[in-house]
Amino acid sequence: MPATRRIRFVLVGTQHPGNIGAAARAMKTMGLHRLVLVAPLRALDEDAYRRSAGAEDVLGDAPVFGSLAEAVADCTLVIGCTARSRRVSLEELLPADGGRRALAKAVEPAEVAFVFGRERTGLTNEELQLCHAAVHIPSDPAFSSLNLAAAVQVLAYEVRLAQLTQLQLSESRQAAPQVAGPRESAASHAQLEGMFGQLGEALDDIDFHKGRAPESAMRKLRRLFLRAELSEQEVRLLRGILSDAQRMARLAGKAGS
Amino acid sequence: MPATRRIRFVLVGTQHPGNIGAAARAMKTMGLHRLVLVAPLRALDEDAYRRSAGAEDVLGDAPVFGSLAEAVADCTLVIGCTARSRRVSLEELLPADGGRRALAKAVEPAEVAFVFGRERTGLTNEELQLCHAAVHIPSDPAFSSLNLAAAVQVLAYEVRLAQLTQLQLSESRQAAPQVAGPRESAASHAQLEGMFGQLGEALDDIDFHKGRAPESAMRKLRRLFLRAELSEQEVRLLRGILSDAQRMARLAGKAGS
Repeated sequence: MPATRRIRFVLVGTQHPGNIGAAARAMKTMGLHRLVLVAPLRALDEDAYRRSAGAEDVLGDAPVFGSLAEAVADCTLVIGCTARSRRVSLEELLPADGGRRALAKAVEPAEVAFVFGRERTGLTNEELQLCHAAVHIPSDPAFSSLNLAAAVQVLAYEVRLAQLTQLQLSESRQAAPQVAGPRESAASHAQLEGMFGQLGEALDDIDFHKGRAPESAMRKLRRLFLRAELSEQEVRLLRGILSDAQRMARLAGKAGS
Repeated sequence: MPATRRIRFVLVGTQHPGNIGAAARAMKTMGLHRLVLVAPLRALDEDAYRRSAGAEDVLGDAPVFGSLAEAVADCTLVIGCTARSRRVSLEELLPADGGRRALAKAVEPAEVAFVFGRERTGLTNEELQLCHAAVHIPSDPAFSSLNLAAAVQVLAYEVRLAQLTQLQLSESRQAAPQVAGPRESAASHAQLEGMFGQLGEALDDIDFHKGRAPESAMRKLRRLFLRAELSEQEVRLLRGILSDAQRMARLAGKAGS
């Protein structure tokens, strides 16, 4: 199975079914077939199939989820496409870097998602917080609104360039020594979210916030740990530490009461 | 006048006015404004303006010629976009090379054209013979039919990348080299070691090791946090959390004693 089969393109809250069809076509021209829909505003219609123009298979195979979290639950790398990641300070990649990073991850192997927001309003802050990095197409600031399928085309094109480069590299390396061994397997999205949930509880338990709003600290911690691309083993280690801190806090609570 | 003003995108014999509108939008997002039409099959209509979505100016300014020869008469570089330049043996460029070549020519200064053929049948042999080079978007051979506006988007994107690279080069040649943006300053070695020292104490305080040798866990945690390239602010945040966990452990100790 080619690594690109582990790269999905997730369209969130798409308004026009025609754009979904055009996105399916854009993906397929670049050898990508895994389209995923999250809560599209309208069902696929004639316009969607007409604009898919030969990519009806990609369109027909697309699963539909109710939330982005569900759509990327098994992904170890989630890249959000933003007009400008002005609100959540995620690491911001150029499309070429995004394509290379995604392919490298997919080769490990691991599941990877590119996430595209609504036509007018993009992704919500909550959705962006599920992303490990943001990719920004360097459009003209004076007129930066790419059509959804056009943005999909650019990212799919960059994934294909990364793939073609990799194919060339692997051909030139054949017979040559094999590289790096099996790295520890990366934590899944669900495992990370489980850890963040416990982290939030633990901060409460040890009275870290002291009346301050917890969102800011949690956002910074999420960013830090997502950037570190934790392994499963590391998530277990961190959760073990949190559990012991929580146990101490319970004992202290008994002491205080 | 920026050099990109000397780069025109010529659409030949376009069948669907909607595609012309979408192409205008694709160009404008990448800072390109000179659209030229050659013998479109139908006049611009409501669909064309609707899909231009903010690029009505590009659409409205587009001159219409009867033949490709007239449309590129003043150009010194004409690059034809082909699914595959199988019929006329032109030099074949990748999109990135096409973008760079076009911009370099426009800077001279000289007039440059990218030429896009009909939706189904592309450019005729006669039209290709007017081109100095061909550019091919490296699509999947199994499904290579990009939508016209999608092909325009990819080429316009490559022209913009070439332009941004050129701008960076010329800026970096002016005055001193500017470094990255105002990223938070990275934690120093001493700050990190201070944090690791406190982390070791905190793990003891919350009785994390339970008789196991502490070295293995500490080695894994060091690796994780070093990999994350912590900022000073993040080190302060993490040390604040450790302090609160230690405070709880002390309280719990009093409870236990």
